This record gives sequence, C-alpha cells and structure tokens, in this order.
Amino acid sequence: MKELKGKMVAEELMTQTAQTVDDLKNINCLPTLAIVRVGEDTSSISYENAAIKTMQKVGITVESHLFDEDIESEDVMTAIESLNQDPSIHGILVMQPLPDSLSRNDIARCIDPAKDIDGLTPENLGKVVENDTNALYPSTPRAVMELLDYYGIEVEGKDVCVIGSSPVVGKPLSIMLLNAEATVTNLHIKSKDVKKYTKEADIVISATGSIELVTADYIREGAVVVDVGFGYKDGKPVGDVKFDEVSKVASAITPVPGGIGSITTAVLAEQVSRAAWILNSN
Amino acid sequence: MKELKGKMVAEELMTQTAQTVDDLKNINCLPTLAIVRVGEDTSSISYENAAIKTMQKVGITVESHLFDEDIESEDVMTAIESLNQDPSIHGILVMQPLPDSLSRNDIARCIDPAKDIDGLTPENLGKVVENDTNALYPSTPRAVMELLDYYGIEVEGKDVCVIGSSPVVGKPLSIMLLNAEATVTNLHIKSKDVKKYTKEADIVISATGSIELVTADYIREGAVVVDVGFGYKDGKPVGDVKFDEVSKVASAITPVPGGIGSITTAVLAEQVSRAAWILNSN
Repeated sequence: MKELKGKMVAEELMTQTAQTVDDLKNINCLPTLAIVRVGEDTSSISYENAAIKTMQKVGITVESHLFDEDIESEDVMTAIESLNQDPSIHGILVMQPLPDSLSRNDIARCIDPAKDIDGLTPENLGKVVENDTNALYPSTPRAVMELLDYYGIEVEGKDVCVIGSSPVVGKPLSIMLLNAEATVTNLHIKSKDVKKYTKEADIVISATGSIELVTADYIREGAVVVDVGFGYKDGKPVGDVKFDEVSKVASAITPVPGGIGSITTAVLAEQVSRAAWILNSN
Repeated sequence: MKELKGKMVAEELMTQTAQTVDDLKNINCLPTLAIVRVGEDTSSISYENAAIKTMQKVGITVESHLFDEDIESEDVMTAIESLNQDPSIHGILVMQPLPDSLSRNDIARCIDPAKDIDGLTPENLGKVVENDTNALYPSTPRAVMELLDYYGIEVEGKDVCVIGSSPVVGKPLSIMLLNAEATVTNLHIKSKDVKKYTKEADIVISATGSIELVTADYIREGAVVVDVGFGYKDGKPVGDVKFDEVSKVASAITPVPGGIGSITTAVLAEQVSRAAWILNSN
C-alpha cells in the first residue's frame, strides 16, 4: 500500500509558483492576496493561517480584511468591490463558512472572476464545465486532480466514484474528472446503494465530512482511495475514510492529515500568481 | 410501454410562456429574440425555422441576423455586442454549429448572460453547478428535465446513466440530475463498459449522436429511456436508441422524432420570456 502524501505535491506546486512570483517581481508586480474573513470561526482562522504561511513561502504578500460577524451583507460587498478595483490586489479569498446572515452565493457573485482565486464565482465554475484549463478553479477539487497527476494515477477511462455532491467539492470534482475522461459516478446521501458502486471502482474519492464513513467493505482490493474529509474523533484529526482498515485493501490511499488538505493552499498560491500574471498581461 | 411524447410537454411550457408574454405586453414590453446564424448549415436552418415557429406561437418577435460563413470572428462579436446593448432585444440565440473558423467559446463569452437564452456563457453554466434555478440553462438538458417532470418520473435517489459528456448536453444534464439528487453516472467514448452501468440503471439518457447505439441488452426490464440523439438512417430520422427493440424492454421511452427535440424550442421561448421579465424588472 502506497501512502499518497500531499507534502511533495504541494512542494512541487510551490516551487513552480515561487518561480512565477520571481518573474512577476522582475516586472515590478508584487503578487498580493486579500483575505476576507467575517467572524471568528476557529477552523476558518486555522485555514487562514495555513494559507498565509504558504503565501509567505512563495513570496506572495497577504492583506487581511476582517469583519465582525454582525456586519451587513452590503458592507462586505462594498469591501469586495473596492478590492476588485484595487490594481495592487491580484487575488481575493473569502473565508468559508460565512455567518448564516450572509449569502454565500451573493458574496461570491461580487468577486471579480479575474481575482477569484478559489473558483467561487459562477463564471469560473462554468469554465470548469467548459474544460477551460486556464481558468481559476475551486482549490480543493483541483488539489485532488494535482495529487492524482503527481502520483501518475491515470484517470482516463477509469471507473471513479465521488462521494459527496457539494458545489464546493463534489460537483466540480466530478466535472474535472469527467474532463479527464474518467467514467464518473457521483454518490451522495440520497443514493440507494453507495457500496454497490464504490466496490467496483478503480478510484474512490470521498468528500462528505462524515467521519469514517468509508470502511474496508466499500473498497475493491487494489483500488486507489482519496480522502477529502476532515473532522475530529476523540480529539484526533480524521477523515471520511477509516484509514486503518481501508489501507489494508487499497493499493494507494491519502492520509488525513497530510493528504489533500496540505495541497489546497499551494493551489491557492499558484492561482494568485497566475491571476497576477494574467492581470499584468492585460 | 409508455411513449414519452414531447408535444404535450412543449404545449404546457408554451401555454405558460404565452401568459408571461401577454403580461409583458401589458406593461409595454415586446419580448424579442435575436437569432444569429453564420453560414448555411442545413440542420441549423431547420432548427432555426422550428424556433421561429415556436416563438410566433407564443407571441415572441424574432429578428434574424445572418452572416456569410467567411465572416471574421470580430465582426460576429461586434454584432453580438450591439445586440447586448439594444434594449429592445431580450434574448440572443447563436445557432450551432458555427463554422470551424469561429471559436464557440469566444463567441459564447460575448453574449450578455442576461440575454443568453441557451445557457452558453460560462456564467450561466456555473449557475447550473450552483443549482440556481432562476438562471438561463442550456435548452436541451433542460428539455430532458422538463420531460421527466411532466411525466412524473421521479429522479431523486434513482440510479441514472447519462451517455455522452458534451459541454452542451451531457455534462450540464449530469449536473442538473445531480441537483435533483439522482445518483448519476456519466458514460462516454472512453468508458470501459457502458452496459455494465446502463443495465442496472433506473433511467438511461443517451446524448451521443451515435445512431442506434443503445440496444435492448443495454437496458434493464422496466427502466425509463430518454433519447437525446438525432440522425438519419436510410433517409429516416432516428436517435441514439434502437427504438423497436428497446421499447419492448423499457417501461417508458421517448420517440425520435417527437421526443426531446420537440421540447427544446419551447424551453428557449420560456427563457426568452423570463429574460425579458427580469430585464424589465431591473
């Protein structure tokens, strides 16, 4: 069984990104990310800190724009609008989850698609459907594609199951896998029989947030298993996959932590540098 | 075996649309569609004529903008841009296929998403991913959803196979079915074993353009079969499905012609009226 660690994938992405950032600095462009956070959600703050660390490593400047959780929706939109207009800002990252009082879709639609480095806007999501690989994609599904690519795991023609159909991960990931010409089945809470599909799949990717949902009996001997889940059990971080038993059946599996989660901020950094490059070319 | 004819589905949509058109005329808005066609593709012209007939029936005015097939891409874009700006135009339909010299994506991206009544723009495709049901969707996959809805064919939790993964039909249809909480498998030319999936499915939808690809041995006894294909065999119109034999196995099946094809122009008309309504409310 091969453990598909995210660290090397992230490092390769970051090396390329640091090079792009250097090239940009040579033409007097200082790639800069604006982080917008509303409220004090703990997991949001720890993800923000991880993102800041990655940006610093590759030479991207970060500006944080923090708002109280009782802020009006319009005030957040006005702040985003001014970041859209600001030529010194190349990427905008709105931390999730937003407080219940704010609409994720309304906020997403304010972001200039050219600066939308987490692929939240309908325009960028639509470019995933179009298979426009120059577009800015949602970071987590793109992290999965980067991992499969790094480890040389062929997807074309393979039977792939995606468990979870959220607009942030499951749905765009299914489309990206379809663009890569996999046979994709998307499974979710309403599916009659998840195991019937996963037991026959070459690759199973779980993105439900349901802790240890995927047990050994879900997986065919020799399949590849990718765990996009993240949660806690008895105070320890765990994913969607029951690692101890599934790792005995799978030929390759991502750990949690240290798998997909460690790649997403590197994807964000790559997308900031690419957005800066494109904004500078126009 | 029940034959799922498109005519009644189209008529119901057109009755609703004619009402919306009347309401618009009462507030002095004359809903108007601009058709843009480049070249003289025969199937494109016959589809255009069908669309014009449907628009006339519901009271929508049609303007045709025709161009020689050797026109420069920029000239088409300039024409579309002036339609975008024209307040008397509420919908823009660019006929497919375009000549090889023009890029479908470049042309699509010129259309104002608010007038994009065939869901070609990335913004509208992205709203399909977001499950924003107020958006303007690609007409053919929406026609499939309207047919299933009209005949009371439940999709939630059902095992559904979509054969074909084009950005115009297969991919957006898979997303719409996923939004309706079906378990969706998208199959295509690179799939190892299409039949393995289709033989177990509750609903099989074929959108490949490969004549009579789907034979009786693809279908489980009692399944629902939807044929989005259209072609000719011995001079007669046929679909993706070998109707004579599949109709003996399926519990319900769409005919070709007279199935999905007869609903798409009604969907376009509904979307012109809706676009006009929204443009008038702003």
